[in-house]
Amino acid sequence: MLQSDTVNRRYVLAARPQGLPAPAHFRFEQTSVPTPNHGEVLLRTLYLSLDPYMRNLMDEAGPGYAPSIGIGEPMVGATVSRVVASRHPAFQAGELVLANAGWQDYTLSDGMDLTPVGTLRQPALALSGLGMPAFTAYVGLLDIGNPQPGETVVVAAATGAVGSVVGQVARLKGARVVGIAGGADKCKYAVDELGFDACLDRHDPALAQRLGAACPDGIDIYFENVGGPVFDAVLPLLNLRARIPVCGFIAHYNDAVTSAGPDRLPALTKAVLQKRLRMEGFIILDHYERRYDAFRHDMARWIEAGVVKVREDIVEGLEAAPAAFAGMLEGKNFGKLVVHVAP
Amino acid sequence: MLQSDTVNRRYVLAARPQGLPAPAHFRFEQTSVPTPNHGEVLLRTLYLSLDPYMRNLMDEAGPGYAPSIGIGEPMVGATVSRVVASRHPAFQAGELVLANAGWQDYTLSDGMDLTPVGTLRQPALALSGLGMPAFTAYVGLLDIGNPQPGETVVVAAATGAVGSVVGQVARLKGARVVGIAGGADKCKYAVDELGFDACLDRHDPALAQRLGAACPDGIDIYFENVGGPVFDAVLPLLNLRARIPVCGFIAHYNDAVTSAGPDRLPALTKAVLQKRLRMEGFIILDHYERRYDAFRHDMARWIEAGVVKVREDIVEGLEAAPAAFAGMLEGKNFGKLVVHVAP
Repeated sequence: MLQSDTVNRRYVLAARPQGLPAPAHFRFEQTSVPTPNHGEVLLRTLYLSLDPYMRNLMDEAGPGYAPSIGIGEPMVGATVSRVVASRHPAFQAGELVLANAGWQDYTLSDGMDLTPVGTLRQPALALSGLGMPAFTAYVGLLDIGNPQPGETVVVAAATGAVGSVVGQVARLKGARVVGIAGGADKCKYAVDELGFDACLDRHDPALAQRLGAACPDGIDIYFENVGGPVFDAVLPLLNLRARIPVCGFIAHYNDAVTSAGPDRLPALTKAVLQKRLRMEGFIILDHYERRYDAFRHDMARWIEAGVVKVREDIVEGLEAAPAAFAGMLEGKNFGKLVVHVAP
Repeated sequence: MLQSDTVNRRYVLAARPQGLPAPAHFRFEQTSVPTPNHGEVLLRTLYLSLDPYMRNLMDEAGPGYAPSIGIGEPMVGATVSRVVASRHPAFQAGELVLANAGWQDYTLSDGMDLTPVGTLRQPALALSGLGMPAFTAYVGLLDIGNPQPGETVVVAAATGAVGSVVGQVARLKGARVVGIAGGADKCKYAVDELGFDACLDRHDPALAQRLGAACPDGIDIYFENVGGPVFDAVLPLLNLRARIPVCGFIAHYNDAVTSAGPDRLPALTKAVLQKRLRMEGFIILDHYERRYDAFRHDMARWIEAGVVKVREDIVEGLEAAPAAFAGMLEGKNFGKLVVHVAP
């Protein structure tokens, strides 16, 4: 059923997945639409962002940077929402806001976590090119990676919400950019549309060899957003004083058990020492206060000028969310995955 | 035989070890003492420093930061040497210099790599408290670790040439210091003499548990100079934004083959991300130009004032070098290992 004025449709966490999430891990529910109290607004979800971090929040242990989702609680997620009713002085009915409504049609907010979306021609842009994943790319690449003209930057998931921005901004800074993506279509897009210098297919059995050929001067920055075999191919190619911003490791999000050997940690430690590598993790939530304004200003300008292109993979209807989410964890999306929940 | 005026005794690399070096990997040779050409000095070795990095130089691949030792070439090493004869205007016969004579009685130098030792009461101090390992501790702890008052610092090989300085300087900066060392004697020394807040025995089967008890506020800096099981005990205790200067991984120097599983890399990557860790390797050779003067000034003052104590483990005679070196790689030394080659 479609979104209605009286029923709140939502997906709650039904069971904790071991490995890839399946339909049984989500439960579709219909509840009544809540009524805002004094100081609250009622929000209606227009667009829902689907992002890999959500998989971590489905684990009981949780990722540390945000609470785990409880069984029976709605799946969380950033949204572009419309204020339907407001008892909060700062928000007007009809206004579009960036919110955290989660996988549901309606939610209440006290306004603390809301940001006006303003007059974007494409409201979903607040979740894609101007959203959290692009901000992640911006902070990780610029503040930790610090790309210099002529350096070589490698990023996986090259057409994804994070990787596509990493590569395009690195090019703006004068770096050479080699992407890795799943399939010929995505690789072609990365080179032809996003301006990457090269893009390799992650399914290629000769990936390590091809990466070496594509990076004749070695690798100065590896933006780590996937982990797994890509990391193994990158490690021997890293240059002295290479930087590795770590923003994700999607290849391991669904690991149900400890990985089998061999143990790759000694080789990493050896490389860190001998090549004076810097590997630094970051969680984008930490950086909004200090860096968000600069990001918003730079990125809006770059998108407007057409030097950073944004591709969205928009799926229709809240019902599509569970399957689209699972597909994203397998790399099936092409561009920033967003659910169009209501017009 | 003892050092003579006419014979140069030396140890050359006879074979590349797989694992721990044994006597068969070194060959004792006697050659003639070389004669300095114009612009050269002839040096006689008084003290030879034995350090874990030398193990890496015995591998064919080499560590990257310095060339591998060739088969039949003298083992390398820093020395305190006396200028025996000089055809170099900057050096006088009789002068003591910090040199790189290696495991032998005599060598020639063009002076480029020599530093006057000056008037140290204990010349071996130029290899220990004022030497490369102490400088390694200084740069890694202060420049990468950046300890703040009240933070918790953990360092292994706590009574060794690097670890002892890391701990003492961290205490000077107001941090709480927990050491890990091999055996009760070393642990007692770390607490009673070096002023560590606690020190745990690395052989203790309950090390991980005891480390947790010794670090009730978690760990803010782990100075990585050993690798292996200590790292595994440290990882779960690291605080948000903890720093890991990586200066060595002695536990793996003798690994002959790829380590067996489980693969610990995914867990590390996960921790780096979720805890926003910074892991950074450094090679001390890179830092002499920028930081050596500050180190020399600070450390001489601290040693003079007695707030940093230096323990040397001095073995007598060049013949003792191979066994002492192998013992050091197993943690048998107690203090900075130095060979007293000639009076």
